[in-house]
Amino acid sequence: MEVNTQELIQVLSDKITLYQHLGIEVVSLSSSGVHFKIDLEKNKNHKGTAFGGSLYATAVLAAYAFVLVCLREAGLNTENIVIAKGEIKYLRPVTTDFSVRCGFDAEADTKKFLADLKQNTSARLTVQSHIFGLDNICKATFSGEFVAKL
Amino acid sequence: MEVNTQELIQVLSDKITLYQHLGIEVVSLSSSGVHFKIDLEKNKNHKGTAFGGSLYATAVLAAYAFVLVCLREAGLNTENIVIAKGEIKYLRPVTTDFSVRCGFDAEADTKKFLADLKQNTSARLTVQSHIFGLDNICKATFSGEFVAKL
Repeated sequence: MEVNTQELIQVLSDKITLYQHLGIEVVSLSSSGVHFKIDLEKNKNHKGTAFGGSLYATAVLAAYAFVLVCLREAGLNTENIVIAKGEIKYLRPVTTDFSVRCGFDAEADTKKFLADLKQNTSARLTVQSHIFGLDNICKATFSGEFVAKL
Repeated sequence: MEVNTQELIQVLSDKITLYQHLGIEVVSLSSSGVHFKIDLEKNKNHKGTAFGGSLYATAVLAAYAFVLVCLREAGLNTENIVIAKGEIKYLRPVTTDFSVRCGFDAEADTKKFLADLKQNTSARLTVQSHIFGLDNICKATFSGEFVAKL
């Protein structure tokens, strides 16, 4: 099913209060993958690099957006999506604007997730997000476990 | 060493850009423990409950504040504190304003951390934060691994 990306961005921005403070620009948003560009200025810490809480928040938002767009593309309009667990490893300081990417290598997992969901009305999906600096080096990796119900 | 709590809150609020958007009220901030009260309204998700990224951000901020205040009370003025890893388990939805607490049971760990730091100029501390609803039931548990250097 074709998904209106602008409408989906509006859903995120309207419904998740923190969204507007994270300096997010949505580069792409589909079941092939989600890519956000993030403004460092809005996310600084005491060292002038990106705050660990901001990195997590943008990573979990990209992952949530990915789950949502996969459901929408499959024609499943549930908003009953929750996160059960999240984990992030901070590999290197983020000293520039940064990118968050997720779902670019997740086709088999999402297929299984959607099949499970249709069959059992509840399913679990682990989504990984990666944070890259402008140098394209990975600075942090996030993994989140989502549960969706129909 | 006596620490000026107001000055420390100012440091958090001035230096961590996201702080001002998280609806944080600092109830207590010392090496005996950190307690923040958080306004749900600023942290809503698509279900009207607290956004997982906000829960993480407030939990990591409380934990960071705890590390900072422990260092200050020990007379160590380094701001060279980074987080290496963070993990959060979401146990129940947060439907009200909420509290974040950390460090209330951490005296032995912080003593060892401060001793290590003085001896080796670098040390690691794992800090747990817990999120409670107004019903005093634990809704989420966070664990963060911090590294400080002199």
